[in-house]
Amino acid sequence: MTQNLIRKVFSPYFSNSTLDANNDFGIIESSGNRRLAISTDAHIVSPLFFPGGDIGRLAVCGTVNDVSMSGAEVFGITASFIIEEGFPIKDLERIAISMSAAAKEAGVKIVSGDTKVVERGKADGVFISTSGVGYIPDGINISGANAKPGDAVIISGTLGDHGMAVLTARGDLGLETQIRSDVAPLNGLISSLLSEVPNIHVLRDPTRGGLATTLNEIAAQSQVNISIDETSIPVNPVVTSVCELLGFDPLYVANEGKLILILPDDVSDKALSILHKHECGRNAVKIGGVLAEPKNRVFLKTRIGSNRILDVMAGEMLPRIC
Amino acid sequence: MTQNLIRKVFSPYFSNSTLDANNDFGIIESSGNRRLAISTDAHIVSPLFFPGGDIGRLAVCGTVNDVSMSGAEVFGITASFIIEEGFPIKDLERIAISMSAAAKEAGVKIVSGDTKVVERGKADGVFISTSGVGYIPDGINISGANAKPGDAVIISGTLGDHGMAVLTARGDLGLETQIRSDVAPLNGLISSLLSEVPNIHVLRDPTRGGLATTLNEIAAQSQVNISIDETSIPVNPVVTSVCELLGFDPLYVANEGKLILILPDDVSDKALSILHKHECGRNAVKIGGVLAEPKNRVFLKTRIGSNRILDVMAGEMLPRIC
Repeated sequence: MTQNLIRKVFSPYFSNSTLDANNDFGIIESSGNRRLAISTDAHIVSPLFFPGGDIGRLAVCGTVNDVSMSGAEVFGITASFIIEEGFPIKDLERIAISMSAAAKEAGVKIVSGDTKVVERGKADGVFISTSGVGYIPDGINISGANAKPGDAVIISGTLGDHGMAVLTARGDLGLETQIRSDVAPLNGLISSLLSEVPNIHVLRDPTRGGLATTLNEIAAQSQVNISIDETSIPVNPVVTSVCELLGFDPLYVANEGKLILILPDDVSDKALSILHKHECGRNAVKIGGVLAEPKNRVFLKTRIGSNRILDVMAGEMLPRIC
Repeated sequence: MTQNLIRKVFSPYFSNSTLDANNDFGIIESSGNRRLAISTDAHIVSPLFFPGGDIGRLAVCGTVNDVSMSGAEVFGITASFIIEEGFPIKDLERIAISMSAAAKEAGVKIVSGDTKVVERGKADGVFISTSGVGYIPDGINISGANAKPGDAVIISGTLGDHGMAVLTARGDLGLETQIRSDVAPLNGLISSLLSEVPNIHVLRDPTRGGLATTLNEIAAQSQVNISIDETSIPVNPVVTSVCELLGFDPLYVANEGKLILILPDDVSDKALSILHKHECGRNAVKIGGVLAEPKNRVFLKTRIGSNRILDVMAGEMLPRIC
């Protein structure tokens, strides 16, 4: 539905080569041929605080990660706050502290900000929009359109932790679980990867819509087939249990500290060994590969050995997860 | 109150040299010594449509102007939307068309975007956060901290049009007026100015809090006295009338297409002649000057010849004007 909204309402008027590339970042060619990557996100997660994170950490990491997925070295982010009248100052302070800690962890500065207050009942606590910028090093060429037949597909860790942590934190399910969001800045990990494996084709974080939706976006952008193996996909056992209980599929649940890596198969072992050295990548695993045909399709080889089409999410997506 | 909020809740945690400069933009020194200016704003104006503009035009122009006030040539902006469930698609389309037109008018591209939807009653129609980036040309050094004793103070046109247009558009005052918002991109005007008068010291748009509040910010940043002459300040007669009727002072009402220009007095006539050639600057006028003492103060020479301190706004500011 979001894709439809963008396609119908915004794309006809905002169309330009940068936006039409359909990446989570825009690239601007600046003079001297330096490429500047820029990305923006509004954060409306509910509840504001959840196991493993909060809206502030999410806002910083979400934007750091979106810019980093271009291969850029993020050097600054901006933050604008929409605050509901009566929102507790101590909660705002807790969010500011969390943003500051996440920015330090990522090694980026918050370089510009804005706050607006709306009347009680006209917003829901606090919303935070963040934007980030970074330069893409020469020789790096990463895009959702660059997946090639023969490439390997790697996922950096377990799936579904963020979405399930936020959902169970809402409390109205009466579930108490140990699930913690994976929200984390991935720029350090990406920087290590690119310094040793500069010929990575695609980097993308499987946020809204999860792994399945993100792989479909890539298959469409690159006009390829992506086939993954269900038995290889890492999911925390407690996430699996809660998903089964509630009727969710972890392949469609949002992540905030994971990345999909598509690269020539002959460098996939090297990439995996780098990933395994990082806290955020220690469960990284190769989950499949890229084929030429049928274009624009994602297949899942299931546990029982059958092959099924893995489509974009059709039903209800979890709302307000990021 | 906003300044207090920022000082108490955000500054202690977000402090860095760029943010602490207290400009509406941040400056990042990139390699090759190029300076990148970046700015962000959340837009929550109510109503969404008003004479002379709408939230979309406001979001584009507000950010284009904030970046331009650094002297930078804006080359790209991002936009993130928070949309209330049930918001009419035709209104969203009208806003997208308006943003597209404003971006064309300003000659900038919308290079990255995001949309999020929240439940009915959890937002108010639509909120738009925009960020913008641009490079500052070599030799340009503009900041609120650069006003020098002996400088002239110029305002580019009439005051209070935006705030009063939005206020009367709310309809609950039962007033029907001809007041149109001045919301406009000022980057073209600024580019013309800087090409002929590169030694401008301060550029700032008097938005929230109006001319009086903005001059106080500059006086504090530069540690100078700014003295302006009430009789010289341009205000549309209908804005004056409505302000008198409602008890507002146009010096404290928001503008969205005006700039304050502080520069060596010997180039003020040259700057005025450039301003007068532009639609947005045709009512530009010199309104005062900068003195060394008493520091951190703004004085108004009134119509009756007395001198009074022009303080930051103390009472209620118009809410949700931008």
